[in-house]
This record gives sequence, C-alpha cells and structure tokens, in this order.
Amino acid sequence: MSLIVVGSMAFDDIETPFGKSNKIVGGAATYIAWCATNFSPVKQVSVVGGDFPQEELDALAQRGVSLEGVQIKKDEKSFFWSGRYHLDMNTRETLVTELNVLGNFQPVIPESYQDCEFLMLGNLAPSVQLSVIEQLKKRPKLIAMDTMNFWMDIAMEDLEKLLAKVDVLLVNDGEARQLSGQYSLVKAAAAISKMGPKYLIIKKGEHGALLFHGSQVFFAPALPLEEVFDPTGAGDTFAGGFIGHLARTKDISFENMKTAIIVGSVMASFCVEKFGTDRLREIKKRDIDERIREFVSLVNFDISLV
Amino acid sequence: MSLIVVGSMAFDDIETPFGKSNKIVGGAATYIAWCATNFSPVKQVSVVGGDFPQEELDALAQRGVSLEGVQIKKDEKSFFWSGRYHLDMNTRETLVTELNVLGNFQPVIPESYQDCEFLMLGNLAPSVQLSVIEQLKKRPKLIAMDTMNFWMDIAMEDLEKLLAKVDVLLVNDGEARQLSGQYSLVKAAAAISKMGPKYLIIKKGEHGALLFHGSQVFFAPALPLEEVFDPTGAGDTFAGGFIGHLARTKDISFENMKTAIIVGSVMASFCVEKFGTDRLREIKKRDIDERIREFVSLVNFDISLV
Repeated sequence: MSLIVVGSMAFDDIETPFGKSNKIVGGAATYIAWCATNFSPVKQVSVVGGDFPQEELDALAQRGVSLEGVQIKKDEKSFFWSGRYHLDMNTRETLVTELNVLGNFQPVIPESYQDCEFLMLGNLAPSVQLSVIEQLKKRPKLIAMDTMNFWMDIAMEDLEKLLAKVDVLLVNDGEARQLSGQYSLVKAAAAISKMGPKYLIIKKGEHGALLFHGSQVFFAPALPLEEVFDPTGAGDTFAGGFIGHLARTKDISFENMKTAIIVGSVMASFCVEKFGTDRLREIKKRDIDERIREFVSLVNFDISLV
Repeated sequence: MSLIVVGSMAFDDIETPFGKSNKIVGGAATYIAWCATNFSPVKQVSVVGGDFPQEELDALAQRGVSLEGVQIKKDEKSFFWSGRYHLDMNTRETLVTELNVLGNFQPVIPESYQDCEFLMLGNLAPSVQLSVIEQLKKRPKLIAMDTMNFWMDIAMEDLEKLLAKVDVLLVNDGEARQLSGQYSLVKAAAAISKMGPKYLIIKKGEHGALLFHGSQVFFAPALPLEEVFDPTGAGDTFAGGFIGHLARTKDISFENMKTAIIVGSVMASFCVEKFGTDRLREIKKRDIDERIREFVSLVNFDISLV
C-alpha cells in the first residue's frame, strides 16, 4: 500500500462565473494527496515556501500523508497560479504564474520512501519527474505520470526520455493530440504507446475519460452535474482516485484499471463542486460509495434487450 | 411494429478533411429509414422533386419502407444542402441551402399509416411536424422528435406547441442550451421537461449522448473511431436506431430506452465511417451485434472491485 506522490503544493487564485476564491491552497500534489488518502497512505514529494500554511501540512499529516519528502524553504515563496474560467469550464485562461520555489526544485527521496510500489508523478518539469525515478533503488510496480502542453513546447527531449520509463500517461485530449501529432484520439493513443506508456488515459473534462491499452479501450463518463463550480484540480483529483484505487487493491490488470478510472471520475466529480480542495476535505466513504452507484446507473444497460 | 418516419429526403454535397462527396442522397428521413429498417418496417412521410433517383426509392421500398406517404413533385427540385466540416467534426459550416420542394411541404398521412404505434418526427418546420400529429386519428404510443436551433430562432411559438405534444425530444447540446436558456445540461434538461417531453436525449456528437427522465440520467458514449469520415446524418441515424429499437421491442420503459440509446450510438458509429448513407447500406445484423458487444466492453466495469 505504498504510494509516492510527486508534484506541486501551491497557492491558487481562481475566478469562475460563480465567484472568486482569493488565494487558497492548491497544487497538483495537494489535490492528489487529499484524494488518494481515501484509499491509501501517501508519501509526498514536493516543495513549499515559508508562506505555506502549517495547518495545511498538519491536516495532510493527520490524513496519512508522510511529509518527509516535502522541502520547506523558509525564506522563499510557494508556487502561485492565478486563472480564470468562463462558462465553458473545459478551457481556462492563466492570469499569473509565479514559479518561486518550484523554479529550482530538486526533489530528494527519503530512505523511508524507497519501498514504494506505486509512483504518481504529478505535472512538473519532466527532468524533475525523471530525477525521482532515478533516485528509486527499486522500480515501482507501476509508474503513472501527468504532464502538460507547456513541457511539449519547451522540454520535449526530457519528456521523451521520461515517457520511455513510465507505465501510465495521463493527459487531456488537446495534449494527446499535440504529443502525437494525430487528431483522432484512437490514432493518438497508438502513436503515444510507441513512446513508452503501455496505458494511456485521455481526460476530456466534462466529456469523461478514455483508457487505452493495446487494442483495448474503456470509457468513463463524467457525472452530469447541475453546476461545475470550480474545475481546478479535477484532473489531479482524477489521477489521485485512479492511483489510489490501484495502490489499495495492488492489482494492475486492465480490468482493475477500468474500475480505477471510474473511481477517478467519481472523485473528480466531487472536486468540482466547491472551490479548491474544499469538497475533497468533506467527503466520507459513504459519499464515495453512493456516487459510485450513480456511475453504475449512469452507464449500465441491459444487453439482453438488444 | 408500425413506425412512421417524417422528414426530408434530399441531396447533400459534403466536404470533409478527407474528401468531397459530390451530390449524394441525404436528408433526415433517408438516414432514419436506412437505419430503422434494421429493426422495424418504416412508413415514410416526405417530399421529393422529379430529380430524386427512382433507384433510391426502389432500394428503400425493397428494404421495407412504405413510400405511400412520400410525395413526388415531378416539376420541382428536391431539397439540397451543402456543407463543409473541418478537423473538429462536431461543428460544420453550411454553404448552400435550397429548400425547393420542402418550402411548401404539406404532409398527407395515408389511411394505411393510421395504425402506427411509433412516430419519429425528423427535423422539419415545427408546423409541419405538428400537422402530422394532428392528422393521426389515434395518438401513437410514443412520439419522438428532432429539431434544430433555426426553428428556435424563427418559429418558437410553433415549437412550443409541438413540444407539449411529444414524449421524446432529441437535440444536440447547443440546442438544449438555446432552448432552455441554461448552460448546465442537467438544468437544461429540467427546464425542457417542463415544456412537455418526458424524455430528453442530448446528443454530444463524438462525446456521446445523455438521456434524461425525471431525476434519472443515462449516458452512452460514442465509439472511439480511428477516423470520423463524414458525420452528416449521424444524429438522424442515432434517432433511427433509437426509435427502431423501441418499435421492435414495443417497450417504452426507461430501462429499454437506455438500450435504445446504445443502439442509436452503435448505428451512428457506422454512419460516420463513409460518405452519406454508404455504410448504412452495407452493414448486416452481425456487424450491429459485434459493435454492440464493443459498446459493452467500452463501458462495463467490475463494481465488486471498488
């Protein structure tokens, strides 16, 4: 049940058609950890500045997140991102990005993390993600990674090296198209599998997610919601649910990955209901179970009638 | 097993990133009929000009389409539409629309159609769709209708009268938003159900389709395809599969409508593989069965693992 999560812990300032968040705690690894701890303890690898709230670190620790791999740079500032969403929540506008501590982040993997079986590399510079893999003495059972178009633009060589070493890549549809040079997602999946990852998850926001493995494909919808309040972190939460379920069950078969995708989609459907990680902090196992049942009724049909 | 299909039979000239069709047979009722006859005989209601190919009419008749309700205006021209698709096949550009015979179409329901249990109103002026309902002496067991944003712009009053009389409305996501004034599709569905239809199907093209009924919701994905060659008629084909399955099984429960949505999605996945109705003319029952199995594996997951 050992899961390492690598990624940013940060401040976000978010504007949606429904309101403004002001400066709140965010970052890929924050969302992944809040989500994945529903299923498995987490060993966190990240970096924050002296401005990062101690209460947030305490809350994560209480939830089963080991913070030994989180560097605190007392005299520096945490990563800051500010963005704006319009009515179509599938696209967003970045207003401000301040790298701060993330600018020269060199992750150090503590000895106590070395036995990990599952590794989730949240979106970061590919060279940073790569250095985590290189520090592990034994290759984890499963390495999953997220990335973004920015790294395809400026660090494609590093990204290619990294892709050759991972099992699962999670990207959105636009990123899959950019990475592969293919518009059709089926063709994109075939092209990306040649770069290394045996499993590809293409996230389509409110349109759900696809899992490709060889010639197999699985689709999980997003839960139709009355209101998507704030989509920030939905992709990271999805990744947290996916890797959390795998770490809990220790089963990396395609069949179980399908279930893990559903768990990811379920968790993302909570994330978007409030600003930041607010909703993820509230939910209990019974909420998750209830929503999994909603997903079953959303997609199940009677084949005997056909 | 009696199903009336109302709609255009026409010529289309289609341009996609993959080629140009030249002038080919199209029209909502043509697609619906080619599709629905896999499941049920069809009683067609339409109008064509003297230029409409007799071979097409013969082919439809041979397939089990009654043409008694299809008016042939020898001295006039058939409806003509020309359009262009770009790489994102979810949107299209209309280049030419020539109403021709459709301009003053007054459908006449033959006596032999009067016993019909299922009525599928393809996209036409709401007043024309309404006149079909008014000509039926006995209300069919189920009335389904398609419409488009154009009628919301210019004939909203007629459309509202019509909506109050139908059971199922099929529209795309943009149309559902325009009709309801709601961006959230869940809220749009609630608003539209107050206008009359107890069942609402929102088609999202390559992103699948949603079925709403009261507080129940079901989602069917579109099959991920290597290439969408020509999306023209996919929505009509979807409607044909949906109503065809219901007419075959005579079961209008929500459970069976879910299966009907899958059948619609399966049929639409064939439609887009070639220009016009070409692919629909080729497929056999075994092709349909095989693809239904693909849909099952696309969405089925093991809940016991969660």
